Amino acid sequence: MKLRKPSELDGRLPRPILPDALLLCSTPIPMLIFRILVVGSVLSAFLASAQTLADQLGFPAGTKLIIVHADDLGETHAVNAAAMKALESGTINSASLMVPCPWFPEMADYAKSHPEADLGLHLTLTSERVYYRWGPVASIDRVPSLVDQNAYFHHDWEAHQQINAKEVETELRAQVERALAMGVHPTHLDSHQYRLIMSGKDLFDAFLRVAHDYHLPIFVTRDWFAANPYLQSSLGPGDIVLDHTVTIEPQVPPQKWAEFYVNALKNLQPGVTEFVIHPGFDDEELRAATRERATWGAAWRQRDYDFFTSQQFRDLLAQQNIKTITWRELARLWQTKMAAPAPR
Amino acid sequence: MKLRKPSELDGRLPRPILPDALLLCSTPIPMLIFRILVVGSVLSAFLASAQTLADQLGFPAGTKLIIVHADDLGETHAVNAAAMKALESGTINSASLMVPCPWFPEMADYAKSHPEADLGLHLTLTSERVYYRWGPVASIDRVPSLVDQNAYFHHDWEAHQQINAKEVETELRAQVERALAMGVHPTHLDSHQYRLIMSGKDLFDAFLRVAHDYHLPIFVTRDWFAANPYLQSSLGPGDIVLDHTVTIEPQVPPQKWAEFYVNALKNLQPGVTEFVIHPGFDDEELRAATRERATWGAAWRQRDYDFFTSQQFRDLLAQQNIKTITWRELARLWQTKMAAPAPR
Repeated sequence: MKLRKPSELDGRLPRPILPDALLLCSTPIPMLIFRILVVGSVLSAFLASAQTLADQLGFPAGTKLIIVHADDLGETHAVNAAAMKALESGTINSASLMVPCPWFPEMADYAKSHPEADLGLHLTLTSERVYYRWGPVASIDRVPSLVDQNAYFHHDWEAHQQINAKEVETELRAQVERALAMGVHPTHLDSHQYRLIMSGKDLFDAFLRVAHDYHLPIFVTRDWFAANPYLQSSLGPGDIVLDHTVTIEPQVPPQKWAEFYVNALKNLQPGVTEFVIHPGFDDEELRAATRERATWGAAWRQRDYDFFTSQQFRDLLAQQNIKTITWRELARLWQTKMAAPAPR
Repeated sequence: MKLRKPSELDGRLPRPILPDALLLCSTPIPMLIFRILVVGSVLSAFLASAQTLADQLGFPAGTKLIIVHADDLGETHAVNAAAMKALESGTINSASLMVPCPWFPEMADYAKSHPEADLGLHLTLTSERVYYRWGPVASIDRVPSLVDQNAYFHHDWEAHQQINAKEVETELRAQVERALAMGVHPTHLDSHQYRLIMSGKDLFDAFLRVAHDYHLPIFVTRDWFAANPYLQSSLGPGDIVLDHTVTIEPQVPPQKWAEFYVNALKNLQPGVTEFVIHPGFDDEELRAATRERATWGAAWRQRDYDFFTSQQFRDLLAQQNIKTITWRELARLWQTKMAAPAPR
């Protein structure tokens, strides 16, 4: 199976359309031309299916909906604590949990006492830090291609590595089963570091089979179809597909953090957009766990927490007439739509 | 195999002789009689082998040596950070690492950059906290009796549980092998929650076989022989046996913490005594990880850190003419003694 190396160590990928456009001014010319081409091709794809997910769900034309989604819950306590506080403040309205991580039990406990919380599973197949690590939920003997010589998940997936899609499926099912056994009833599934999105058709199909078996929507957006055509060909008419995603990237300097999100919100396209954010508290634990590099580190996560729990963010939503929606709400509306008789 | 339930949830057991004696004043009468009997029987055992380990190693008669030993490194960052700081301040002179825990890689990194540090392995078979958990290093399929339904190590070992000694040995070897592969060259082995000491001959023998195969001393003291006779019968003439151990217990109120240790040091018996302590920083991470109960919790560990890095502790060592010794030094002296021709 062919694996493509993530552009950045963390493997956070598919670039959102909107931030790309915002970053054009600081981009060298050849890259600029390339980006315009990519944006152009994706825009053409949009034109081919003009209806947004919001349109399909019966919202008035032009409706802008966002999921404000915190990733990586369960990884450290500092991430859990920030996410729980942000969820309760009501601006972050969705999140997903890393089942193999040591702090997952804290989030399982939270999920049991907050059954209304919109919590999915952040299916995890890598252990990308250096001083703090974790491994599979499935027995290691059953998923040998997923672990390094010390039985942790690989730090990264190198180009030469053979990641076995059957083992991936075994591990994904083990993660869902542990979550269910521990009282978590996920509203959706997504993929840590987008590994299941960007690593070829075999892994995406394994992801999709697991999602279908548990009747759960997966986080996938039309933004990614151009770069990964197998996404569109594997998805069926019963699958929810978001319109866009926005996530901040290492090119954005700390002092431009709020500006990036403000621009993203001011330029938001109609439809359903997931803001993939990484709140966390910049404390001893998180600084130690992420100290080998600044990307998605403690200060980064504190900046995300600060912006999305700010009055500025709330005010912008009101000013721009942006509504929030959860995965649970999306799934219910989708179910109603699918159950309705087809228009004549 | 018969398992005895720990007297306290944490399973920290064999009571040290010295603190028992110190605590007699607050003990109800029947328990007092029982304790006097136990102390008496252990004292008789001492009389039967009057030579202390210090005597056997050639120290002058009456020499008092202590290992100031920090447990549970690798469990959380707050424990690692406190232990590393205390090791570098030079009063804590030995420690052991929990290989299955998520913060073990941080300690492996420290061990590689501090090859002189006296670091053993704190062999771990339980995951005793609630919100923060870990599981085996060996493949779960090979150690099914050691894990709960969610594939974590058991929270506790219940009386009805069948812990398979062969699986224990498999897991112990996996922990040693991971440590070696990650650059840790342990000076000794000990057992988290004394599980391998207090759970019967089969488990102790498995522990001993692993120690012998890797040519490592294990932490065992003559204090424990009376309550666990299989210890003495399994140990051979080549095994190092400490004279005493001191560890603080939940009966000691926080305000008496320093007093307990001061009394223990003032009443220290000749020979080699290991002070089993649990330093840690009372911060967000450790408070969250241990919040379901105070025993061996964040405040407890901060108190241990504070006493053993205090000037009061240093002064007491000088006043009482107590010397410190490490496991590495003990093993070297023992090796020299074993290599020497027997006296005619």
